[in-house]
This record gives sequence, C-alpha cells and structure tokens, in this order.
Amino acid sequence: MDKEIGKKKFLELFPELVTELLDVLRENGMPNDAISWFQKNLDYNTPGGKLNRGISVVDTYALLKGYKSYDDFSESEYKRAAILGWCIELLQAYFLVADDMMDQSITRRGQPCWYRVEGVKEIAINDAFMLEGAIYILLKKYFRKDSYYIDLLDLFHEVTFQTEMGQLLDLITAPEDHVDLSKFSLEKHSFIVIYKTAFYSFYLPVALAMFMAGINDELDLKQARDVLIPLGEYFQIQDDYLDCFGKPEDIGKIGTDIQDNKCSWVINTAIKICSPDERKILDENYGRKDSAKEAICKELFSKLKIDELYHQYEEKIATELKEKISNIDESRGFKGEVLTAFFKKIYKRSK
Amino acid sequence: MDKEIGKKKFLELFPELVTELLDVLRENGMPNDAISWFQKNLDYNTPGGKLNRGISVVDTYALLKGYKSYDDFSESEYKRAAILGWCIELLQAYFLVADDMMDQSITRRGQPCWYRVEGVKEIAINDAFMLEGAIYILLKKYFRKDSYYIDLLDLFHEVTFQTEMGQLLDLITAPEDHVDLSKFSLEKHSFIVIYKTAFYSFYLPVALAMFMAGINDELDLKQARDVLIPLGEYFQIQDDYLDCFGKPEDIGKIGTDIQDNKCSWVINTAIKICSPDERKILDENYGRKDSAKEAICKELFSKLKIDELYHQYEEKIATELKEKISNIDESRGFKGEVLTAFFKKIYKRSK
Repeated sequence: MDKEIGKKKFLELFPELVTELLDVLRENGMPNDAISWFQKNLDYNTPGGKLNRGISVVDTYALLKGYKSYDDFSESEYKRAAILGWCIELLQAYFLVADDMMDQSITRRGQPCWYRVEGVKEIAINDAFMLEGAIYILLKKYFRKDSYYIDLLDLFHEVTFQTEMGQLLDLITAPEDHVDLSKFSLEKHSFIVIYKTAFYSFYLPVALAMFMAGINDELDLKQARDVLIPLGEYFQIQDDYLDCFGKPEDIGKIGTDIQDNKCSWVINTAIKICSPDERKILDENYGRKDSAKEAICKELFSKLKIDELYHQYEEKIATELKEKISNIDESRGFKGEVLTAFFKKIYKRSK
Repeated sequence: MDKEIGKKKFLELFPELVTELLDVLRENGMPNDAISWFQKNLDYNTPGGKLNRGISVVDTYALLKGYKSYDDFSESEYKRAAILGWCIELLQAYFLVADDMMDQSITRRGQPCWYRVEGVKEIAINDAFMLEGAIYILLKKYFRKDSYYIDLLDLFHEVTFQTEMGQLLDLITAPEDHVDLSKFSLEKHSFIVIYKTAFYSFYLPVALAMFMAGINDELDLKQARDVLIPLGEYFQIQDDYLDCFGKPEDIGKIGTDIQDNKCSWVINTAIKICSPDERKILDENYGRKDSAKEAICKELFSKLKIDELYHQYEEKIATELKEKISNIDESRGFKGEVLTAFFKKIYKRSK
C-alpha cells in the first residue's frame, strides 16, 4: 500500500462527499447562504490534518482482506471504506472545533481556529454539531442496508461519549487559568488520554474496518482493543514527552504544555517522584504564562531524569505490545499484522 | 389521562435515569469529581421546563394503545415510553445549553444559563455534547433488542440535524448584533421555525410513540408529519405573536423579540405589507437595545394591523388542520385523536 497514493485517493473523495452532504440541505430547501456556510464549515475543518485516522480505516481493511494495493479494491468498496475513514475525520473535526473554543486556542493546522474566522464566533458551536450530524448522514446513505449498520451506529455513539468523558475530566482537572497540581496524577493522566484520544484515534479505525470486513466477534474486537488502547496511551505519552524534550525542528512546533498547565505525562511523572521542596517549585512555576518559570520546570524535569524514565517506559510498553501482538488468535480472521502496522508508525518516532 | 399525575410520574423517573447514566461513568472508572459534574449537568439542564414534549410521548402512546389511565401501562412499558420522552428532553437540553451560549442569554427557566454558572463557562460545550450522548446510552440500554431500535436511532439523527439546520439559518439570518431586514422573509421564517422547532417538538414525540406502538408504516408517519409540522409552525407563529401582543401577566414574561432582532412572524409580516417609508422606520428601529425604538416598532405593527392578520392566519390554519385531522386514514392503527390532542393544546392559547 503506497502511502502517497493512499493519501491522494482518500483526499480526492472528500469533495464528492461534500457535494452529497450539501445535497441534503438542498433537498430540504435550505437557502443558498446556509448551504455555502455549511460547505465552508466542512472544507475548513475536516481535511486539513494528517488524515492518519481516516486513511488507517482503508489500510486496515486492505490488510484484513489481504489486498496488496488500492487496485485490489472495487470502486464502491474503496468508497465505502474511505467514507468510514472520513466519518472519523468528521468526528475529529467536531471535537477540534469545540475543543479550540473551550481552550480558547488561536490556531489549528496552521490557520486561525474556526470560531476565530470572521463572522463565525459562537456559531461554531452549531457548526460542530453539524459536523457530527454529517457522520450519520453518510453512514445512513452508504450502510443502512448492511447487517452491521447498527454496530457502526453503536460504535460511533460509544466512542463519541468516551471521548467526551475524557474531555470532561481533562477540562476539570487542568483548567488553563487555575493551577492545582494536587488534582493531577498518573492515573488521571492515563484515563484522560485513553478516553480523550485512544478510543477514537486507535480503536475506532480498526473496529470500523473490522465490521466492514465481516470480522465482528466480540473476542476479536477485544483483541484489537487490548493492544490499541495501550498503544494509544503510549502514543499520547510520547506526544507529551516530545512536547517537552523533542527538538522543535523535529516536532514542527514549540511545546507549550508547561505554560498551558497541561495534565501531561511529564508533569505527572515529576509529581510522583519529586521531593516536597521540588514539588513546591513545581507548584509555583508550572502552568504560568512566563518563559522563565517554564525554564525552571524544564530544569527540574532534567534533574529528575524524566527523559530516562520515558525511555524505560517506552521499552517496557513496546515489549508488552509486541508480546501481545505475537499472541493474537487469528482463527476467526483477525490479523495481528493490523496491529503491527499501527505499532510501527509509533515506536521511537521523533516527530 | 390526568395531567397532574402524568407530570408527577414522568418527573419521578428522572432520578432513576440519572443514576443509570452515572453508573456508566462509574463503570468506566471516571473519578468522582467528573461524576458529580455530569450529575449537576443533567439535573440543572434537563428537568426544569414544562416537559410537554417528553410527556406527550407517553400520552400519545397511551392514545394509540387505547389506554384510559396510567394504570393501564405495565411498569416496564411505562418506563420505556417515558424514557423516549426523556430522550427528547435531553435533546432539548443539549440544544438549549448550546443556544444560550450562542445567543449569550442570561437566564433560562428562571435560573442563570448553565454556561454562566460558577466554574462552567466554555465547559458547557462539552456538557451539551454529553447531554446528547445520554440519549444514545438510554436508547441502547432499553431498546437495543427491539426491531425498531434502528428506526429510533435514524429518527433522532434526522431530527437532530433538521434542528441544527434551522438553528444555522436562524443564526446567519438574524444575528443579534447586526440588523439587516433584507435577509428576512416569511419564507425564511417558515423554514426556520419548522426546522428549528416543529420537527423535534411536534413530530418527534409522536413518531417515537408510534414506533413503540408498532405503527411504523411510512404512510402513517407521513400522516402525522403532515399535520404536526404545520401545527408546530402555527405554535411558533403564535409564540411570536404573543411575544409582541400578549399580556405579560398571561405569557409570564416580557417580550424581547423586537430588541433582540428576532426573525419573528410579526416583523416578517410587517415587512411584507409595509410601504417604503414604513420599511425605513423598521430598518432604523428594529433590533436595537432601546425601548423607545421598540415602542416605535410596536406602534407601526399596530398601525399595520398585524394582530388582525394573525387572527386571520389562526382561523385559516385551524380550519385546515381540523380538516386534515378529520381525513386521517386509521386503517393501519394510527389515530387522528393523537393529533387532535396536540391541536387542542395550542388553539387560541394565550400563554
């Protein structure tokens, strides 16, 4: 499966889906200004990211079916797999539009956040709702007749709610304007990242591909989950690590987690191992919009050797995951190689 | 069906549903502060209204089954019907929490809007999402095994998106801070009220009760829609009329539509019939936070005899609706009396 072709094919489908979604508004007699608005909402918020989640539905499906290239798909088969992928991207768009408002973020994917675009403001809330609504329009149009339609709906509902639970805990644990490290813990961090990220970014794409490939035994879904959820947690821990210890030229941004009072793996690990005096330093310097205070935190993190602890964690989790993958029961058609593909994308990445 | 008992029974179920919803968070290992937060979200935003929409699911179901009192329900039957009703109330809560943020409203149901409660602010966006998520948790728990589960999901998705389309058109047609009457028209008003209000407030409760009662022929759903959608439009037009011409002691509030630049039936009718000079008066005085300008608008509305036009509209639509109801085909088990019950609640109400 060629990566570049994969992204190109996936992106090429999007304008067609936009047309189909706008047709729904047209058929309902919506005036043109509302149709244009929805189009701008879809175009601005959905396709600008890396699209890893969406494309991985198609690629996972290909692995499960034993396809070697995109040419092995029938046209309608590719379209349906890619639509499931775009539904994840729509779900992500729905979350990001809302998250940016809640975090009062400035930019997203190199452009102003949607709510900051001229004339949008609070309308972005309804726009987020409509991005979510688009998922169910597409699922109904393309999967209503399939035996697993109901499973797709239940899965989207469940994963959406899991993500919202993670988001809630994150919001009340680490408000940007009020530092209280006593609310932090590695356990809460684990819950937040699993619920806020791992379910929709790692488990959802694989589960969707599995349903479409007819591999729907709960035992197999559990096998997938048992690897993908800790893998997703590892991915986010790595992200937290790179935000603090990665090189800006590698990660393509300057980390802001310390100043933003983020409930990150780095601060939670530091809290766990630091002395009372060091804790006082963290209480006084973490989560402040002040680069001198940020530097003090970074210095303490180095002293505490958080980077070494990270590498220890990484080796341990990598070994566990490889072990689990090697023990996957493939008797019902599920394939460990699906999980290996995800693992390889993440292990020891520096960006 | 005793109205007071109906409301009491319906309300009594809510704490039980809250417990069941919180159990989902507990089973997922959410910390207590997040569980308490969700509880407060549910309690603050769901049960405080008139609950007409929710209760009407139960009452419509009773009519379809020929029940004379709530005693005719089995216990689980009542609970399931009432849960469908509570799902509408949750849908409404989801919309209202978001609408209040988008409109920057101050109070709702006699208390501060949720986003204005201490410590909530933008978290209200995620809270709105979770209110919507609660619908699908309850539907799955109580209806997953029923043949019409899929119909319930499709219906909620469809009506949710319709409401969001109506909300979008309302938001871009009548922003509170920018008056442009050239964007208004009776046609847009009709679209906005039908999509934003009529589908979820009138069609949804009846359709849910119909599915549960096993009356699911598209012909019957269409019969219901063909009366309930214009009835819902009439209800909203009446609401617009009362906001301007009703007595505060009757309607329990002081109308603010004129100052709020609302795209109401009153202003749209005035625009349609006024002279160019009168239009200029409206352009200069409508939608301003200024009670003198509001009084000028009201005076012009009186001069244009908008109230007479309202009464003409009301008589015409009432006649049409009664005619349609009298022609309902009851051969498949649907009953015109369901629609008569809704009609009677609305016709010539003054509050």
